[in-house]
Amino acid sequence: MMNIGLLIFPDIDQLDVTGPFEVLSRIPGAAMHILWKKLEPVRDIHGLILTPTMLSADCPRLDVLVIPGGPGQEALMEDKEIIDFVSARASEARIVLSVCTGALICGAAGLLVGKTATTHWASINLLKYFGAKPVNRRVVISGNLISCAGVTSGIDGALVAASQLVGEKQAKIIQLAIEYNPKPPFNCGNILTAPRSITVPARKLFATVSAKRLKTARRLRRC
Amino acid sequence: MMNIGLLIFPDIDQLDVTGPFEVLSRIPGAAMHILWKKLEPVRDIHGLILTPTMLSADCPRLDVLVIPGGPGQEALMEDKEIIDFVSARASEARIVLSVCTGALICGAAGLLVGKTATTHWASINLLKYFGAKPVNRRVVISGNLISCAGVTSGIDGALVAASQLVGEKQAKIIQLAIEYNPKPPFNCGNILTAPRSITVPARKLFATVSAKRLKTARRLRRC
Repeated sequence: MMNIGLLIFPDIDQLDVTGPFEVLSRIPGAAMHILWKKLEPVRDIHGLILTPTMLSADCPRLDVLVIPGGPGQEALMEDKEIIDFVSARASEARIVLSVCTGALICGAAGLLVGKTATTHWASINLLKYFGAKPVNRRVVISGNLISCAGVTSGIDGALVAASQLVGEKQAKIIQLAIEYNPKPPFNCGNILTAPRSITVPARKLFATVSAKRLKTARRLRRC
Repeated sequence: MMNIGLLIFPDIDQLDVTGPFEVLSRIPGAAMHILWKKLEPVRDIHGLILTPTMLSADCPRLDVLVIPGGPGQEALMEDKEIIDFVSARASEARIVLSVCTGALICGAAGLLVGKTATTHWASINLLKYFGAKPVNRRVVISGNLISCAGVTSGIDGALVAASQLVGEKQAKIIQLAIEYNPKPPFNCGNILTAPRSITVPARKLFATVSAKRLKTARRLRRC
């Protein structure tokens, strides 16, 4: 059996965790644990209700630890119980998969020191405060850390994780089972190549939370 | 305000609904309703707990109705309360978005008659029983029906829906916000182009449920 733990929390961005869940839960023999420090449901930033299946304090040794992001990551970065949990379980895990601003939680737990990593484009400037070298790639592998860019990239990262865990053939079967043959209707999912008419309003959407994250990163900096 | 209703049910395939939720919940003014005929949580096929926010019987007139799939779609196809609900709300909605085998629920509700449509590759042979002309495309628009292929395609389809609802610029901003710039690690998400070494075991995974779905489709056929 393979123990796969996925952290959830209030104000998570739900696809950060449901994307990897979709991929990793199809690994034969995977035991999926949705983890939080309480057993009550949490709401994602847009109101989707997610429910833990196990207390983080009760979870077994994990083969894979998935750390998603979303605005709620801010509160977690200064939550000693969670940071201790992430740090302890990450040190035992074969793979830590961070998605979106989940990388900042990993940063607060000291997991980024000396690593290359990525995160959502609106937060990639913050990785340096946690000792990571930022890389503008969708999925970055560095030691046991697989870090993914924003939100949807968790699907790509989880397929990379699956191939490390159970081999390329099994990962490919999963990809076909979930028909992951993406055809975005527009070509503007990348901040470096999207037109200014899209990047300017998109950056505005993140202005407030990015300013808050910068303050937190400076306060908790590890280098 | 725009009312967006997303049906959930026991043994749903969770990404069919969480993918579109991620996109559509970012539409300014969207009111998201997670609908089921009871308010108790349901479990997806791999154990993720999803919780309705509203009884389907109580939901307001919908601008968008999202119908996801997964093995639990079988039971819904002969559930008069749900089929009546889908049929009634679909007739008022600007857009019906079917994802994966959600198309078969739409079929049972009579929504596919005379339409072009798609669904998961393991079920696309069943669309003809419901009067639809199957199309091997990731997203198919036919009248007010936007049908999507398997699981992950709901993200592409929801972006198409968003562009119809609030314009291309807003849809592009959403695409950038969720960094939807997919880079699948392997090239095998399409049943028509994946190698036999992957399609053969993938088809085996679906053999039992596909046989069951064929029986149901023949029993409920509309043409």
